[in-house]
Amino acid sequence: MKVKIAELQAMVERLISKRLYSKDEAARIAEVLLYAELTGKNTQGVLKLVSANPPQDIKPQYAPKIVRETPLSAVFDAGGAVGMLAAQLATDKLIEIAGRSGFGITTMRNYSSSTGAIGFFARKIARKDLICVIASNSPRSVAHFGGIEPTYGTNPMAFGFPTMDNPIVFDMAASAITWFGLVQAKALNQSIPGDVAIDADGKPTTDPAAAMKGSILPFDRSYKGSGLAMVVELLAGVASGASYVFDEGDWGSTFMAFSPSLLMDLPDFKRRSSDLIAKVKSKKTGSGQAARVPGYDLEFEILERTESGEIDIATEIFEQLRAKDQVTTT
Amino acid sequence: MKVKIAELQAMVERLISKRLYSKDEAARIAEVLLYAELTGKNTQGVLKLVSANPPQDIKPQYAPKIVRETPLSAVFDAGGAVGMLAAQLATDKLIEIAGRSGFGITTMRNYSSSTGAIGFFARKIARKDLICVIASNSPRSVAHFGGIEPTYGTNPMAFGFPTMDNPIVFDMAASAITWFGLVQAKALNQSIPGDVAIDADGKPTTDPAAAMKGSILPFDRSYKGSGLAMVVELLAGVASGASYVFDEGDWGSTFMAFSPSLLMDLPDFKRRSSDLIAKVKSKKTGSGQAARVPGYDLEFEILERTESGEIDIATEIFEQLRAKDQVTTT
Repeated sequence: MKVKIAELQAMVERLISKRLYSKDEAARIAEVLLYAELTGKNTQGVLKLVSANPPQDIKPQYAPKIVRETPLSAVFDAGGAVGMLAAQLATDKLIEIAGRSGFGITTMRNYSSSTGAIGFFARKIARKDLICVIASNSPRSVAHFGGIEPTYGTNPMAFGFPTMDNPIVFDMAASAITWFGLVQAKALNQSIPGDVAIDADGKPTTDPAAAMKGSILPFDRSYKGSGLAMVVELLAGVASGASYVFDEGDWGSTFMAFSPSLLMDLPDFKRRSSDLIAKVKSKKTGSGQAARVPGYDLEFEILERTESGEIDIATEIFEQLRAKDQVTTT
Repeated sequence: MKVKIAELQAMVERLISKRLYSKDEAARIAEVLLYAELTGKNTQGVLKLVSANPPQDIKPQYAPKIVRETPLSAVFDAGGAVGMLAAQLATDKLIEIAGRSGFGITTMRNYSSSTGAIGFFARKIARKDLICVIASNSPRSVAHFGGIEPTYGTNPMAFGFPTMDNPIVFDMAASAITWFGLVQAKALNQSIPGDVAIDADGKPTTDPAAAMKGSILPFDRSYKGSGLAMVVELLAGVASGASYVFDEGDWGSTFMAFSPSLLMDLPDFKRRSSDLIAKVKSKKTGSGQAARVPGYDLEFEILERTESGEIDIATEIFEQLRAKDQVTTT
């Protein structure tokens, strides 16, 4: 069904600010969820509010705090807050530091559940005219190359670059399938592709339940994907003070950014990155359509959806949201 | 054949310092070539001295210079020097800046030919207790995902992390096969695997000559490898002032590093990164042997070879080197 974006947003904010989060905090969390809806990545969207362990029910232990700070860095302890809020705080602080110093790095640990799509934060940082790298780890589900036991999380990484108009934002998970992909296939009684996971004995499997007891493979089934997963574990887990190579534990994220003006005048960088897009799009493709530049082309779609004022959402999910909204407002 | 490392090194330094480079510069270039030999990556080693366009014959136009400098950065113009020397200078400056400021970024452009294996520089930086990221671009040979025309270089990326003993160093190219792999297969009249390259019409090919007229595929044949190749093009080409998406042009590299002490006490970081290695190695593998940690395990092999004082080298190459050495000394 089509719903008004403003209506959905107000409902989401109301729902989150009911008990545990302030209106301000709810708005920051809603922003991340709505972005996922606007990009069409709706597994990262408002679905989370009606799934198990929803953000609005995650009770912080204490207010997020900075436990180490230098002119170039801030190390956060999120106090058990929901990951999306924690990542917003780390992003804000990063923009402040890198805006002032030319470079910044912030880390976040002790948050609950996922941060949402990290491309959102990379886009936000790149729109402030900063180049950025973000890494997030999670409980182990992906095997090291040659391994038959989970070692790394699905470990996404994101990169953002300003241009003359839309930022370029590239994000990717280190795993051949997402954990949610397994959960979904299992729930729907579907099989998974034969080359994305192994069972507990290390044999390829198409059974999502067997894969969940076994390991997901690195995205390229080689040492390269495994190496990138390890890099994320080092940046997001080891360097942030969070857990690493873990089952039960503390997810971590690291956010880094620098100004292109460390290297050249900002307008020159933007002119050059926009020119790179033009060059990439000028090359022949199999389909005859211009190559898609990550983040950049998506931004036009987001804009279009935003301007239309309406968004597509599964009726069932919207009804569940509305039910929750009414229960708690009456 | 086995040759004494010291003898090989002296010969290489003599050869390079004959005409265009000082003894000091020759030693810096030789260090990169010898490292490749010690790691067994001998396509990046002394073979270069007897191949086409050898380093010792690359005449610099002018002395490498810094064209922009801030407390956190230095932008180099290499003046046409050989890539290995240029990368050594950028690495030295990076270590100086990041050692002083906690973060540093240096870029290098206007150098001739490849920098050699960028893992060498990542290792050097990590041994100075810095976490680093390096990216290098090169003339276009790799298609964008869905593309059928070369867009990106083979675009390697490297990451380095200090530990309590050997650094972790991960480096990878964004391409499914190296350009040298095509050259070699063509010279030996061999075919290449069916899933690493396409011809000029975009059809998979096993003919290296057809692949050289067509495109190499991203290493994972998907949008992820293509996205990483684009990230390298942005960091190493766009941000450095070098060329990007180019045939004839100016190769570029970017070197970034930060101190773990921005985030936690250095000994804590090293204890944690060493612990990550132990955890990774504790997981079951298909072969029953402990997982190989990139760079880390290699370092033990380098040490062993260094301590033995001797190295394996193809007799033919050594004879060619010796001939060059004698011609120019008499």
